[in-house]
Amino acid sequence: MNPHIAIVGASGAVGQELIKVLEKRKFPFASISLFGSSRSAGQSYTVCGKTYTVKELREGDDFKGVDIVFTSAGGSTSEKYWKTITKHGAIMIDNSSAFRMDEDVPLVVPEVNPKDAFQHPRGIIANPNCTTIQLVVALQALHRVNPVQKVHVATYQAASGAGAMAMRELEEQTAAVLRGEEPKAEKFAYPLAYNLIPHVDVFMENGYTKEEMKMYNETRKIMHGEMQVSATCVRVPVLRAHSEAVWVRLQEPMTVQEAREAFAAAEGVCLMDEPEKKIYPMPRDLSSRDEVFVGRIRKDLSDPKGLSFWCVSDQILKGAALNAVQIAELLLKESKA
Amino acid sequence: MNPHIAIVGASGAVGQELIKVLEKRKFPFASISLFGSSRSAGQSYTVCGKTYTVKELREGDDFKGVDIVFTSAGGSTSEKYWKTITKHGAIMIDNSSAFRMDEDVPLVVPEVNPKDAFQHPRGIIANPNCTTIQLVVALQALHRVNPVQKVHVATYQAASGAGAMAMRELEEQTAAVLRGEEPKAEKFAYPLAYNLIPHVDVFMENGYTKEEMKMYNETRKIMHGEMQVSATCVRVPVLRAHSEAVWVRLQEPMTVQEAREAFAAAEGVCLMDEPEKKIYPMPRDLSSRDEVFVGRIRKDLSDPKGLSFWCVSDQILKGAALNAVQIAELLLKESKA
Repeated sequence: MNPHIAIVGASGAVGQELIKVLEKRKFPFASISLFGSSRSAGQSYTVCGKTYTVKELREGDDFKGVDIVFTSAGGSTSEKYWKTITKHGAIMIDNSSAFRMDEDVPLVVPEVNPKDAFQHPRGIIANPNCTTIQLVVALQALHRVNPVQKVHVATYQAASGAGAMAMRELEEQTAAVLRGEEPKAEKFAYPLAYNLIPHVDVFMENGYTKEEMKMYNETRKIMHGEMQVSATCVRVPVLRAHSEAVWVRLQEPMTVQEAREAFAAAEGVCLMDEPEKKIYPMPRDLSSRDEVFVGRIRKDLSDPKGLSFWCVSDQILKGAALNAVQIAELLLKESKA
Repeated sequence: MNPHIAIVGASGAVGQELIKVLEKRKFPFASISLFGSSRSAGQSYTVCGKTYTVKELREGDDFKGVDIVFTSAGGSTSEKYWKTITKHGAIMIDNSSAFRMDEDVPLVVPEVNPKDAFQHPRGIIANPNCTTIQLVVALQALHRVNPVQKVHVATYQAASGAGAMAMRELEEQTAAVLRGEEPKAEKFAYPLAYNLIPHVDVFMENGYTKEEMKMYNETRKIMHGEMQVSATCVRVPVLRAHSEAVWVRLQEPMTVQEAREAFAAAEGVCLMDEPEKKIYPMPRDLSSRDEVFVGRIRKDLSDPKGLSFWCVSDQILKGAALNAVQIAELLLKESKA
């Protein structure tokens, strides 16, 4: 009784990683179909030793008989095709931001709010934004023993967040700078090589970017809390893992040792905090790893109830593909229970 | 009556920039002498069209007749030679961290605490740490109209903070990665290319690094305040301008517009905050510029009395050489007044 599954956006950075994650985790499926734009249609990919060809996504009955569909082809594709995808009963696990804040769509990080995955009246479960996923996995470790009230977070976001082409663009820009040439920027507003761009997604009326407001809104929805999150999101010349400098205000004072124990005990978190041995999370080492890595845990020097930490996680894995597959695993476990 | 001046550490990144700043600002000097280690001795540099040879720094009377000495050869050199340098009455403007927190040594940023420069009982004036200088120039803009009580700051520090060799190392590492080779790390604990290192200077007992504690201690000393500063300092693959994501808690609520006006009116600050036109400070554009550039000004979503902003400044200029020359200009102005 294994599920029939599909991937929409199979040729993208997240789509490709979805295939790898399904293989690596031996996700049990009866069949898999790959979908993409007219541009991607016809491309072939190997999944568990068998070759599959990408079909063009279009309206119709292509999703009849499919149980779980992973969509990662951007918000407008999800909006345009969600009815096509779900009309015969498939559950759509959507990596875009299209439905994340809709009241009748759960927003799920399995380590934080697994039960929400089973309330999906529209057949859609949303996968949160990558920066939010790693933040809430880390916050939850503290929150379940000492409620989180406020969060300040500065992000250091890798090029991968803007897709596979953006990673190539960063490499090409760097090579151009080293040759003494002017780097070309297409995927980002400005060249990212040897630079920082304090601007991810569009600006909102309050001066925050949409990316920063996602961290505010999605964190509250996933954690079912009233915590206030003020974020500054910055693109950095790193290839694929995101990093975050975080300060939290807790309900009660907490020692560094208590926080370390809470992180060490938390699902999905890997404690990496031995400063005396120069052990702390770094994005270059932790690309392609599954966990959220937490280190540099200290008291907040400006708040007796505050703590500060640094976390790193692979943006394409836990920040997207892995979290989506974990949601599907939840559904599978429930259906077999 | 122009002063006789000297530079100790003339061959270093800051020493070389000191020469350029003195030339650019037409700093009036009667004579200039260059000093360095035995390794640098014998090298020649042109200052205002004349060639000078670096002399080896040693004990003796080489500083007799010199009025102002810029030292930038590391803390141990400053500690070893400060008596030699000051014994005949020269004022030493020291770029190292050796004396910054000494009670009888003023720590000066001319835009913030110019009067402190005239109280130097030991003949030493300390130049603050680069990350602190740009922070206090920005904070002071708000502080003088609305006292700053708390600060959270995440830094994005360029390779230049570890010297000219570190900048070359970052370029070589990037080239190695692009060739598919393993990058070599000598100046940093780990390779910095396409990476982030959340570790600048040594770790202290409270889990903070010395760099992070400098931001706490130096900010309070320069601003004569009790503000609490919690910093996370991170080395990023950028060449020479430092960036900072900052949250401040003020005594009274302040609107974004009021904050913009305060920054626009502040000495040494350049307001660069037009998000709708994608105008915000970025380190690649602002290397070799004098000011502290401030943008991304917003309300802190977690604090009604809080504000958030992003600032960028050239680490070698305002973060080191320029600030030192500005201190010397203060002394000169006073002596001619």
